[in-house]
Amino acid sequence: MSDPEQELGITESKEHATGDWYAEVVQKAELADYAPMGGFIVTRPRGYEVWERLQSYLDGWFKDTGVRNAYFPMFIPENYLEREKEVVEGFDPEVAWVTHGGYDELEERLAVRPTSESIIAPYMSQWVRSHRDLPLRLNQWCSVVRWEATETKPFFRTKEFLWQEGHTAHHDHEEARQETLLRLDQYERLYEEVLAMPVLRGRKPPHDKFPGAHTTTTVEALMPDGKSVQGATSHNLGTSFAEAFDIEYVDEDEDTHLAHTCSWGVSWRALGALIMTHSDDQGLVLPPTVAPTQVVVVPIWGAENKESVVGYATELAEDLEAAGVRVKLDDRENRNPGFKFNEWELKGIPLRIEVGPNEVEDGEVTLVHRPDGESLPVDRAGAVKAVEEHLDTVYGKLYARAEETLEGEIREAESREEILGTIGQHGGYVKCGWCGDPACEEPIKEPVAADIVMVPLDRDAEPIHDECAICGADAGETAYFAKSY
Amino acid sequence: MSDPEQELGITESKEHATGDWYAEVVQKAELADYAPMGGFIVTRPRGYEVWERLQSYLDGWFKDTGVRNAYFPMFIPENYLEREKEVVEGFDPEVAWVTHGGYDELEERLAVRPTSESIIAPYMSQWVRSHRDLPLRLNQWCSVVRWEATETKPFFRTKEFLWQEGHTAHHDHEEARQETLLRLDQYERLYEEVLAMPVLRGRKPPHDKFPGAHTTTTVEALMPDGKSVQGATSHNLGTSFAEAFDIEYVDEDEDTHLAHTCSWGVSWRALGALIMTHSDDQGLVLPPTVAPTQVVVVPIWGAENKESVVGYATELAEDLEAAGVRVKLDDRENRNPGFKFNEWELKGIPLRIEVGPNEVEDGEVTLVHRPDGESLPVDRAGAVKAVEEHLDTVYGKLYARAEETLEGEIREAESREEILGTIGQHGGYVKCGWCGDPACEEPIKEPVAADIVMVPLDRDAEPIHDECAICGADAGETAYFAKSY
Repeated sequence: MSDPEQELGITESKEHATGDWYAEVVQKAELADYAPMGGFIVTRPRGYEVWERLQSYLDGWFKDTGVRNAYFPMFIPENYLEREKEVVEGFDPEVAWVTHGGYDELEERLAVRPTSESIIAPYMSQWVRSHRDLPLRLNQWCSVVRWEATETKPFFRTKEFLWQEGHTAHHDHEEARQETLLRLDQYERLYEEVLAMPVLRGRKPPHDKFPGAHTTTTVEALMPDGKSVQGATSHNLGTSFAEAFDIEYVDEDEDTHLAHTCSWGVSWRALGALIMTHSDDQGLVLPPTVAPTQVVVVPIWGAENKESVVGYATELAEDLEAAGVRVKLDDRENRNPGFKFNEWELKGIPLRIEVGPNEVEDGEVTLVHRPDGESLPVDRAGAVKAVEEHLDTVYGKLYARAEETLEGEIREAESREEILGTIGQHGGYVKCGWCGDPACEEPIKEPVAADIVMVPLDRDAEPIHDECAICGADAGETAYFAKSY
Repeated sequence: MSDPEQELGITESKEHATGDWYAEVVQKAELADYAPMGGFIVTRPRGYEVWERLQSYLDGWFKDTGVRNAYFPMFIPENYLEREKEVVEGFDPEVAWVTHGGYDELEERLAVRPTSESIIAPYMSQWVRSHRDLPLRLNQWCSVVRWEATETKPFFRTKEFLWQEGHTAHHDHEEARQETLLRLDQYERLYEEVLAMPVLRGRKPPHDKFPGAHTTTTVEALMPDGKSVQGATSHNLGTSFAEAFDIEYVDEDEDTHLAHTCSWGVSWRALGALIMTHSDDQGLVLPPTVAPTQVVVVPIWGAENKESVVGYATELAEDLEAAGVRVKLDDRENRNPGFKFNEWELKGIPLRIEVGPNEVEDGEVTLVHRPDGESLPVDRAGAVKAVEEHLDTVYGKLYARAEETLEGEIREAESREEILGTIGQHGGYVKCGWCGDPACEEPIKEPVAADIVMVPLDRDAEPIHDECAICGADAGETAYFAKSY
């Protein structure tokens, strides 16, 4: 007999064909589809709801810490971007250009925003007058477009992507430094407390900062193929944008000062990293924090006990819903239990509850954890409380597994050969002493396409080795090399 | 002594210069600023937060009624729009065209979405197979661009605007009809229960439907200058999009049918209508439902009683906050109470609480309603409950005032001359018998720029007069003429 669920299931292997497997999970779990134009995707309700839950956490934290949402135009006049290019070395984004409106050619081309510093900064300049206007903290949730020619990988690499971009102005360097770290803390918290992913915190080496930034900080996450993903960035822009766009304030003594500005953002790439980290060859795995449905109740009945089994399952689902659990009852007639199990595993529901005649008779229900299939009976009487606890257990399992992987993938090296060999053989992170010269990145970058993805944040920390692993000069800091997305 | 608040206040008159007054309120209440490109605005936090609250109500109602959010690309290939133009008579939007990506010219131009039927319908076609896949209800919150050359009026007329667009597919005409009315009900509820504005429900005359629609329904709101605003629309698209984009399903008997589709949307024009309806010559007036801050507590102290007055005010603000009221304590040292009153009136805080030494002594607080300045003392002990009640009272006052205005602005007419005279003299709505021929709109449209903004929904209702007011033929229905935005 043909088994219909086989066609629905994942056919690629996470271990052996990570890219193909990822693309298959995204499509078959109905998170996203490819758009007709290369580089674009359609985010389906199952994918968008995960983004909404991520947004809801982060937006709440932002608002609790003085941030207010706003909305700036999606277009930026060419001369605004030019102004930014003149003052910010290295800023030359590839953008989508609007040249015609209706049937007419525009007098000036408009860029679809690749990021909004250049259109937000002039308004900050108008809105900031006195020291009382600072700090000014703005954020917008929007989509941006970067016309980079790359193979489309849903959520990871798309020409249009959803993100939030925070833009803040401050009195002085210290306040801007604290803001940068506060947002980095919130991103770290997002990964660790919401997405069940440990991350490494650090700053980008000076040659890899955001153009114009004083400091770029990052949280980096390890993917199963051994590459690092930049999970979110928080930039201390110093006074470069304030100088370019005249963001000045008058202090209590009537003296005029340049403001210090920051920007910080996380994109839907976080969804890509989430999907890739936890999912497996059965399909999507999501932590209960962001899963659209947290629990599926599957009644398993025969002709002789249908009423009692379905009734028992329905009442359980109602109790869970009343307790605030996002629960679905799958009592479809036209699908057998095996099909249902496979479907909800594919679609990433964290906890399955099986209810059959034995469970009804014994006053129990059977819980099954999505990540590892662990199955165990619990009393019906305490089922709601047990479900809440087991959702936490599932979260903990996902986090622990990702943490164990990460810890095993950070290695040390003391020479160029050792770095190359270790990255070539294992991937992951290699940490080593570094003199701080960007030239020392090249002998690693060229042969294995790995570079310095971050340097630990604390500048006063002792480097792990006294000497730069590449040139042998005095090492001022520790560099983390990795291949990256 | 010069009075600094005079410069901050509104200088234009709502009655005598409605347009200028509106623009001044929007800017001085810090809701929005003009962007550097004509037709675009920057939505500031005070404005965006009102939009977020509107979103939160509506999004909740949508989700409670089976709608799921998604996100489709902001660009639509030219051939997709062409396909829509071929099948949908009258569809020829003026759009912004992206012609270059990075340094290269694109092979095919991309339109920045003016609305998304043409990119969503092809996916509906893929996602709908069986009758079990219906109804399919999608929504997205996004921005759209329409390159119409008009004078910019923040929120009312902008080339880019924020909105939500719902797109649904159904089994048959009846289900699509019910969906259309369900969304119209939700829009009516938004206006009446959230924005404190009564609206008229109806359908657009056939010659003014959305291109390709079977029926376009609308809620219309009256503005203080006597013009009507289309507050939201809900379209039953019949099978025209399903035919053009092959949205078909197989029923239980294995027969194939065309789906019926709907689309429905409300834009930030609702904010414009809200601001224009309730605000006055002192500035912004907002209902407590959407006001970012609902209550401001202003302590009024002298040197000898500062500690007790500010302490009393602070404790009150804390109690209100604990009860879930959005409250602000204005204990600034460098502003006098008169300045503070004017500032918060300008910025539209619905309820002010004044606390001076007399209030402290008497164990009272003084509440002042923003809409009409009504001032009354309440016991401190019951202040939290009183504030909650008075917020409802303020809402009621706003609604009642708008309702009274609307009722006085609906007039009847029995001839062309009477319609022209009434609209010319009073503005507002004129209802009359109508034969249903679009030609009968012209003799009104030309001289006074008024047209049929809606026809009451119930097709079986008796027309108010037996004869068409313009041509004298049998009147099949009642038309509402008005000038409109």
